[in-house]
Amino acid sequence: MDPNVLHNLSYGMYIVSSDKGGVSNGQIANTVFQITSEPVTVAISINKQNLTHEFIEASGHFSVSVLNEEAPLQFIGKFGFKTGRKEEKFKDICCKKLESGCPVVLDHTICFIEAKVMCKFDCGTHTLFLGQMTGSEMIKPGKPMTYEYYHLVKKGTTPRAAPTFIKGEK
Amino acid sequence: MDPNVLHNLSYGMYIVSSDKGGVSNGQIANTVFQITSEPVTVAISINKQNLTHEFIEASGHFSVSVLNEEAPLQFIGKFGFKTGRKEEKFKDICCKKLESGCPVVLDHTICFIEAKVMCKFDCGTHTLFLGQMTGSEMIKPGKPMTYEYYHLVKKGTTPRAAPTFIKGEK
Repeated sequence: MDPNVLHNLSYGMYIVSSDKGGVSNGQIANTVFQITSEPVTVAISINKQNLTHEFIEASGHFSVSVLNEEAPLQFIGKFGFKTGRKEEKFKDICCKKLESGCPVVLDHTICFIEAKVMCKFDCGTHTLFLGQMTGSEMIKPGKPMTYEYYHLVKKGTTPRAAPTFIKGEK
Repeated sequence: MDPNVLHNLSYGMYIVSSDKGGVSNGQIANTVFQITSEPVTVAISINKQNLTHEFIEASGHFSVSVLNEEAPLQFIGKFGFKTGRKEEKFKDICCKKLESGCPVVLDHTICFIEAKVMCKFDCGTHTLFLGQMTGSEMIKPGKPMTYEYYHLVKKGTTPRAAPTFIKGEK
């Protein structure tokens, strides 16, 4: 079995956000996928230990910001390699609260999706949340950053808690 | 709500295959993604009306071939726009049966993953199958075809039954 094959699956670069008791949090996610077209549903895979997981479970909604290729590593690092338990990630970030109260990051964002959780599936270390799209908006034209671009051009790395972490890769 | 935002999510181009009673079938899929890293699990979204859905349910396993950018539209069309109920899709296709009996397409394939279904989640028109990776192999170096490449360079279209079909797009 060759774990390196997993490098050939294609993903994007997103910030998934949610809130609890008026507090916002968000994290980098690669696994955001449309699952059905009628109605439009999207699935996200979130590590159970992440604060965003706790917030999505509490609020029953989440937003997805689609990052453009210009998003700097430092910005990605803030949402991807730090925990909202230790610092307020939304400080100094351009964002807005949607009607549902769900926050959405607007910096380096092409567009966003807002979704209401329809069901959740236990996948061991991660939960797959299935959300129905309740809102969406174009923010700024641009090229969506792919996970490949993040690795090859931005020279970014992958935290151990990510669904796409590859153990034993060469 | 702007359905065009959905164009900004990133996907790959894959053939998901399975078997039932010695008969092989496969279909194009865009929604293949790693969900956990320990153990390695992958999720796929398959339309309930597709023959491959019936075969995966019957056999409890599936394979995923990662297509390269050279895969011609005619080849993609065979697996994406035709049903295995009317024609034998694996005829004249380079493929092999894995140890589990699961078939895998090798034409225009960079690598493949074999997975055993751990659980399935009902998502309305589609089922999300969560499979644990039981095998994987590199076949031929190449650049994985992205869904964007399929649309922009190959000028391919999306069938109505796909998870990523966008109703009312401009």
